[in-house]
Amino acid sequence: MEEDWSKQLRPHPDANGAEILRRERQRSSINVDALSQHIFGDEYLSRQARITAILSREKIYDKTQQANLSRPDRYLLGLARGKRMRQLMDEHRWDNDDLLMAEYLIDDILPYHLHISLFQAAMREQCSIEQAAYWIPKVDKWQIVGAYAQTELGHGSNIRGIECEARWDQDSKEFVIHSPTLTASKWWNGTLGRTATHAVVVAQLMLPVKDQAGKYESKGPRPFIVQIREPKTHKPFPSIIVGDINAKYGYASMDNAYCLFRHHRVPHSALLSRYAQVDPNTGEYTRPKSAASVYGQLTRGRSVIVMNARLVIARAVTVAVRYLSIRRQFYDNDDNAGLTATRAETPVLDYTTVQIRILPLLATFFALHYSGTAMRNLYERARGQLDKGQPAQDSDAAALAELHSTSAGLKSLATDLAANSVEICRRAMGGHGFGGGTGLIQLNNDYLSKPTVEGDNWMITQQVARFLIKTVKEIVAGKNDGKSETEKNLKMFLDSKAQGRAKPEFDIMQEGEEGDQAIVNAFAWRASWAAHQAYEAREVQKRPWNSLLIELHGLSKGEFLQVLSLHLLHAAAQTMAALTDQNANESHRTAYSESLLVSNFHAALTALPSTSSPLPTALLRTLYRLFALTTLQATPLPFILSSAIDPSTLNTLPQIIVALMAEIRPHAVRLVDSLAIPDFLLDSALGRSDGRVYEDLWYRAHVVNPLNDLTVNPWYWESELVKEDAGRGKRRIGFEDVKAKL
Amino acid sequence: MEEDWSKQLRPHPDANGAEILRRERQRSSINVDALSQHIFGDEYLSRQARITAILSREKIYDKTQQANLSRPDRYLLGLARGKRMRQLMDEHRWDNDDLLMAEYLIDDILPYHLHISLFQAAMREQCSIEQAAYWIPKVDKWQIVGAYAQTELGHGSNIRGIECEARWDQDSKEFVIHSPTLTASKWWNGTLGRTATHAVVVAQLMLPVKDQAGKYESKGPRPFIVQIREPKTHKPFPSIIVGDINAKYGYASMDNAYCLFRHHRVPHSALLSRYAQVDPNTGEYTRPKSAASVYGQLTRGRSVIVMNARLVIARAVTVAVRYLSIRRQFYDNDDNAGLTATRAETPVLDYTTVQIRILPLLATFFALHYSGTAMRNLYERARGQLDKGQPAQDSDAAALAELHSTSAGLKSLATDLAANSVEICRRAMGGHGFGGGTGLIQLNNDYLSKPTVEGDNWMITQQVARFLIKTVKEIVAGKNDGKSETEKNLKMFLDSKAQGRAKPEFDIMQEGEEGDQAIVNAFAWRASWAAHQAYEAREVQKRPWNSLLIELHGLSKGEFLQVLSLHLLHAAAQTMAALTDQNANESHRTAYSESLLVSNFHAALTALPSTSSPLPTALLRTLYRLFALTTLQATPLPFILSSAIDPSTLNTLPQIIVALMAEIRPHAVRLVDSLAIPDFLLDSALGRSDGRVYEDLWYRAHVVNPLNDLTVNPWYWESELVKEDAGRGKRRIGFEDVKAKL
Repeated sequence: MEEDWSKQLRPHPDANGAEILRRERQRSSINVDALSQHIFGDEYLSRQARITAILSREKIYDKTQQANLSRPDRYLLGLARGKRMRQLMDEHRWDNDDLLMAEYLIDDILPYHLHISLFQAAMREQCSIEQAAYWIPKVDKWQIVGAYAQTELGHGSNIRGIECEARWDQDSKEFVIHSPTLTASKWWNGTLGRTATHAVVVAQLMLPVKDQAGKYESKGPRPFIVQIREPKTHKPFPSIIVGDINAKYGYASMDNAYCLFRHHRVPHSALLSRYAQVDPNTGEYTRPKSAASVYGQLTRGRSVIVMNARLVIARAVTVAVRYLSIRRQFYDNDDNAGLTATRAETPVLDYTTVQIRILPLLATFFALHYSGTAMRNLYERARGQLDKGQPAQDSDAAALAELHSTSAGLKSLATDLAANSVEICRRAMGGHGFGGGTGLIQLNNDYLSKPTVEGDNWMITQQVARFLIKTVKEIVAGKNDGKSETEKNLKMFLDSKAQGRAKPEFDIMQEGEEGDQAIVNAFAWRASWAAHQAYEAREVQKRPWNSLLIELHGLSKGEFLQVLSLHLLHAAAQTMAALTDQNANESHRTAYSESLLVSNFHAALTALPSTSSPLPTALLRTLYRLFALTTLQATPLPFILSSAIDPSTLNTLPQIIVALMAEIRPHAVRLVDSLAIPDFLLDSALGRSDGRVYEDLWYRAHVVNPLNDLTVNPWYWESELVKEDAGRGKRRIGFEDVKAKL
Repeated sequence: MEEDWSKQLRPHPDANGAEILRRERQRSSINVDALSQHIFGDEYLSRQARITAILSREKIYDKTQQANLSRPDRYLLGLARGKRMRQLMDEHRWDNDDLLMAEYLIDDILPYHLHISLFQAAMREQCSIEQAAYWIPKVDKWQIVGAYAQTELGHGSNIRGIECEARWDQDSKEFVIHSPTLTASKWWNGTLGRTATHAVVVAQLMLPVKDQAGKYESKGPRPFIVQIREPKTHKPFPSIIVGDINAKYGYASMDNAYCLFRHHRVPHSALLSRYAQVDPNTGEYTRPKSAASVYGQLTRGRSVIVMNARLVIARAVTVAVRYLSIRRQFYDNDDNAGLTATRAETPVLDYTTVQIRILPLLATFFALHYSGTAMRNLYERARGQLDKGQPAQDSDAAALAELHSTSAGLKSLATDLAANSVEICRRAMGGHGFGGGTGLIQLNNDYLSKPTVEGDNWMITQQVARFLIKTVKEIVAGKNDGKSETEKNLKMFLDSKAQGRAKPEFDIMQEGEEGDQAIVNAFAWRASWAAHQAYEAREVQKRPWNSLLIELHGLSKGEFLQVLSLHLLHAAAQTMAALTDQNANESHRTAYSESLLVSNFHAALTALPSTSSPLPTALLRTLYRLFALTTLQATPLPFILSSAIDPSTLNTLPQIIVALMAEIRPHAVRLVDSLAIPDFLLDSALGRSDGRVYEDLWYRAHVVNPLNDLTVNPWYWESELVKEDAGRGKRRIGFEDVKAKL
């Protein structure tokens, strides 16, 4: 064995990351612990610490070789990790929040994921009391492993279009589940490909048409609990063909499924019947009750998505801030000393072009945090009211309807912001941002699916637009006197318009609280204006959706006079960004959701103790302004067109933003420290909290890379490929070995 | 073996892709062959067909299992593919263009890539005549395998900052190559990790300072040819530590390297000395000649990058247009028939929100094509002039300088447009866009590196900005009377400004050629205006770069009055988009490069035969307008502010764009057919030319997916993971097997 003389080498003194981070932390007096506790609370932080300690001791959660495994091995690793997680739950008597924390920290989508998420939720929501009594204990004990089978090869978002049928057979009192075509195959259904024993299968409920023998009609898509595989062999029943759909963009460890049924029979009890029943004796159908509670469930889920999105941003920003503080590149162009090589180069994070990409994302973390918190609180309040008395009291209904659209818009905006933030940070880190040391590669590949796959953005979209247009319509007709915040804002806007009042032009440049409040008002005004434009276009001019959508797209890109008539239409913006494009981020920052983020951020700051707080309240206000003003600067036109601000304001905006960033810059490292992302989760050479960036990059390359076990034969005229494999001995590997794997 | 009854199933009749594409092709009369020949020429098309036929017969180029292999196996596959490619070159007597075509069609970055690209180019460019006579035959015959080792762990873009040294030892007449720190390790260098025998190593040339014994000074980074590994064992010399840097975002098959030298001695002849010599007897340094020809080389390389970028767009658009013609989703919102399930759903490509994402990319293909062609022609003309007489005749120098900045801007814009186009298309395809059937996953992962890694955008950036500012300065000083097109445009703008002439407001809405020409003029005017703004800011107001950069960033996002003073500064736009961010696309579409794309597109159309051509000339004009007008719509403000167009123009822009897209839509499938991307290269279920989308997705999932060989044990309390492996027999796989791979 040759001597490894690289062990004697250290990074260049200017690239001593540990020392650089120490100095960065020294120059800020932010109380990191106090800020962490403010954001997450003690319970969360101690849970995170406790579970991290447990997982860190388990070899199975080591990520060193993860990126080097084949896809089948990635799945098996996920399976082992999932089993071990559930064993740890037993060993340490974890509750459900502990389990979710563990899953988050493991940071690998486990083949059991659908069991503990959608399957479990669907069972709890859709089972009748009798069904719940039978199934829920098995679900909780993982005595069955479940999936959720809704989307199909030919149909995703349009659930009404799914082809899979469940036909009621009155004679046998069974449902016959059947896929009439290839496109009727279930598709994408996580956990179902290889792992699950059961699935909630969504199928068109087909019932006989009265007095028309042999004729059936669909009552719409309904959920059935179906056993997919035999417990002993874990093989599917002969009337079911099921498997994994093969490698995808991300989610290597997940077995997304295809699944076909051939006249597969299930008992009457398979129809999950909390909301819809078929009488076993008559075949008569009883229709679903109000779906209010389903919406509640959805809303709760969306607030979780917003809170998770902020954690994705936190990770990306943590890595970027630490690495870009350490990394040096070039000298300031206007400094002639640059060409002499004696002085250290400039930290990349000192360039304003880099700051403008990273620091607003840091501010976005807080914006999403405060809005996610507000959403959760609003949900719990509304839910509490609903649970108490009769449903549909006027104010409750208004709150629920508003919450429903609020949550849809924010969820969608948040996932896009998060997905983009990873890529923004990754690219801002230049060359090493393309390497494995970021810790962001898998996150990027996995999370990029969110804006597309998660939820049903097309539907969501229409809900928001319809809600806003309907509200404007009611106010115009004098049928709504403004109960919720949104309604109040809209009413104020319309009243002002009706009375031909002077333009508001909120002075967002004022110092202190007045300026902060003016910003909230400007965003609200612009949102109301936009909602009114959408109402005008759709309800007054009666323009078709398709023609509105395209103009809205133009709006998201450059926006000018042509779009006077329709800024908002959250609907269209959502649709665009959902199926999506490079401007997802911008097109998404539509008036309504942005206004919510700004006003929630401001409200949270206002609620902070003003004196003797260990919190950096002034800095939080700076972050608030940075978030609001960069958001405004991204699409200034509607603010001008709606007279929310004076155009001359924009002249000074860039300088103000630069100044805000200069205030934040010295605290950047401590701010990301406060986000409390454990090194275990980051798994990032560039973002590690001790700053040993280059040492870790070297370790990953030189010490643990299995490719370096191979000494190859480079001569093209020889078919030998591997001369020596230090890992597996002197086995010769040639063309035939490689071909055998194809 | 169970019966596989899925074989009897077909897709739903509405999802019969073959039939749908047949109808799509029927409703357009475009002559696909004529258009293909117009774009690519016969030679290219026949070469593509010939090489495709050869490669298709070779099992080693089959991509079926590629995404399922481990990283080491991906590298070995690449190695085998590279060897086989070179063998085929011998067998079929391929020339270099054939080899490059083969590499393009194989579509996997081969471990030999740096040998046939940068290494070869550097050797041809930097060797003295004697060195070339010795080395080039070995390079051509692959008797050595070479890499190019410039960037380091601590330094990428800033080449002057590299730490690796080559110290001249006058006594032994050798250079001593040495890495003084860990960050001095070479890093990222493709082909060097495991494959190469040699490398061009760029190191600071350290020569003794006269009359100061023991003191050395750097003459700057220079290239050395260094043998890295012993031919027989393929092991590195003891004074070299080299290896692969581990898994990255993309390029799984490439062995990007780290490489340290410890006082490694190479002979005097190792310094590649076409442009710089060290006298072996005196140690005296002779300085480099003019770098004009290096720039020429660079320029040529950039035109290749632009041409390759258009092919990336072609692939993405081909897949998107075919799939989105076939895919159906929802009904038009304004059509009440939608809720009855009897009618077929709407093809996704009929939605204007989808068209606006895809069809402008199709137009962009042509824009890049015509500009890439123009660049190549300009290069060949300028090179011809240079090769003829003495260099540095005034007009030649002007042409070369302009070409240099032209090519930098276009290269950068083109790679960003291409990288974004893949992601835009992928996301526009919704759920299946996240699946393996797109054929775009690896392209996306690999190509996303381009805007960051390829070339040196920071440097490029400053070249372009400096060129424009310098030109304005010369014209203002009366020292430049407008020779090149750019100079003429700038002069016209400045003269007009000086004389206080009326605002131009080109009428871009005119029908026919007048409107087409007005568009060219509007783009040129806006570019000149922007260059002048940059000149004013930098030269007159003397503002520092860093403060300009940040404002420019604002410009790319929302842009308004505050940016009146500096639209262009290509420099800044490049920097931003180079390190980059979500708006890379937009920020990059800066005035100068966009104007070039528009004027080159228009010039190419003008050169087409006007009558009796088999080409769809009217449709090409429609594509030209779509490209120009969507580009304009993306950032309309500078067009208004510079008075290039009348603001009211923007009112009708969306409708006009919708109308242009409606003209193109029926021809979309035939248009992408004309781009002549072979199915072999596409490797896409969604984009295959025969339209059998769903059949192929099913095949990839159900027939060839190795994960489905595994029958697993789902019970968390049992450590067995695999009950049965149909591929490898009944071997039991448990936790220990998985852990052994970590």
